[in-house]
Amino acid sequence: MIGIDWGTSSLRAYRMDAAGRVLDRLDIAGGILTVPPGGFPDALRAAIGPWLAAGEDKVLLCGMVGSRQGWVEAPYLRCPAGPEEIAAATTPIPFEGATLRLVPGLTTQDSEGIPDVMRGEETKLVALADRLGAAPALACLPGTHSKWARLEGGRIAHFTTHMTGEAFAALSQHTILARTSAEAPDSQAAFARGVARASQAGGLLHHLFGARTLHLMDRLAPEETRSFLSGLLIGHEIRAAVAETGARQVELVGAAALAALYDAALRQAGVAVRLHDPDLVAAGLARIARSLGWN
Amino acid sequence: MIGIDWGTSSLRAYRMDAAGRVLDRLDIAGGILTVPPGGFPDALRAAIGPWLAAGEDKVLLCGMVGSRQGWVEAPYLRCPAGPEEIAAATTPIPFEGATLRLVPGLTTQDSEGIPDVMRGEETKLVALADRLGAAPALACLPGTHSKWARLEGGRIAHFTTHMTGEAFAALSQHTILARTSAEAPDSQAAFARGVARASQAGGLLHHLFGARTLHLMDRLAPEETRSFLSGLLIGHEIRAAVAETGARQVELVGAAALAALYDAALRQAGVAVRLHDPDLVAAGLARIARSLGWN
Repeated sequence: MIGIDWGTSSLRAYRMDAAGRVLDRLDIAGGILTVPPGGFPDALRAAIGPWLAAGEDKVLLCGMVGSRQGWVEAPYLRCPAGPEEIAAATTPIPFEGATLRLVPGLTTQDSEGIPDVMRGEETKLVALADRLGAAPALACLPGTHSKWARLEGGRIAHFTTHMTGEAFAALSQHTILARTSAEAPDSQAAFARGVARASQAGGLLHHLFGARTLHLMDRLAPEETRSFLSGLLIGHEIRAAVAETGARQVELVGAAALAALYDAALRQAGVAVRLHDPDLVAAGLARIARSLGWN
Repeated sequence: MIGIDWGTSSLRAYRMDAAGRVLDRLDIAGGILTVPPGGFPDALRAAIGPWLAAGEDKVLLCGMVGSRQGWVEAPYLRCPAGPEEIAAATTPIPFEGATLRLVPGLTTQDSEGIPDVMRGEETKLVALADRLGAAPALACLPGTHSKWARLEGGRIAHFTTHMTGEAFAALSQHTILARTSAEAPDSQAAFARGVARASQAGGLLHHLFGARTLHLMDRLAPEETRSFLSGLLIGHEIRAAVAETGARQVELVGAAALAALYDAALRQAGVAVRLHDPDLVAAGLARIARSLGWN
């Protein structure tokens, strides 16, 4: 089978055997935003035509390709959801010469009735849940929009999104803090000060101004401002996400540099961390394909 | 005497009698950022020359004119501070034909040793404290950098700054929320939903993403997004600022439109509000001048 994670800015494809082992892979820049209207079939054929020609005839896709801006909109599936529910909710896409199905995004509601959504991360979480087994766990996938998911019985029970990465970019570049920030290597000490500040009274909007006043009082150098701000925001995210669940351990899935920051902040907050290989999409697609009876 | 509030973008001058009554006033666009290096004496003379020629010889200045980017840097004075301490800490500026003194900004530290600063607001707070008398009060001056001050015994005991206005601008214009926001008149209902959301679990960074998901689920219109976000941020600010002090009533000092938002949010949070005329600078300058023995 072929598994594809087709996101906003890139397309990653995996040719896999019946046991889910990756035989070959592609990583190209042709994200969905580069595809002209009606151009998805041709774009897909351009990417994986040789594999189709070699006899592959089942393709499972996940990611933003199933969003309103994608090929076909795959409706969000309600949590709790595991590979069985996700497989049953996949959307077929007509395509000559192969069976194509699209993994749905997930949605959940908190106790106040406010919705949350993910699209793409559900496939990684299916793989993670498969590895962790049935015991409850709290997973963190940090990023522009960080996802925190409770896993239970091999399924995704509930999740929350934190707009941390995007808030960091907006606040560090488009407020007065930008004026006293200098590009510099990450400062672990300044990051840790930001994380510590997040656990104190006053709230995030007050803590942000502290980056300004600490600078005015010569207690935060321009080279340290971005790291302090990063620690402040990640600290606030962790405090809210961990407090909500009362978890003592987090399963962390992220690219190396960002995972290192979250690892440090979680440990500083007294939470144990297990780091996982972030390359989980292929395994998740294979697991969903198994529930589809494809392998 | 002449009182001057010389800020970043404007200069407001007041000619006052011995009782602090305003006889004449000026409001010009010549903020400190428009003044060339060494140009402050000429800029001041251009603004208030006629009053000086008419015999005024004492000028008290406050605002960003006392910052590092201003005429002379007036060091921050430590709280608690009232008109006596502020008058004693004014900085003289040599100027031919008149006595000039500069009001210091204030600084404070929280229990964690993190500093906060204000410059300009201290003069308004002196006037407010003078009106309110000696009983403890909590004052809120909303804005780009909102100030919350505890007043006690006619002095400013402590304060905190919240970067709410600036965070709103950055987050509403430079995140994914901008894509689904439409310019529209303020929506009181959406604002109230944002305020209510701020009191729920999850934290600000999660609540921000809720503006996105509510839109995806057709529960927040593009015309409502900015008001919802405004309510969310002001709600978080109020929750942190009021929780810190346990106050049941807030003395609110702000321009009409912004004061109306804070008034609504405070009442929604169960806090009583007294609205005050925001035009307090002249009275504050007159009060400090009295402590200087000028009237």
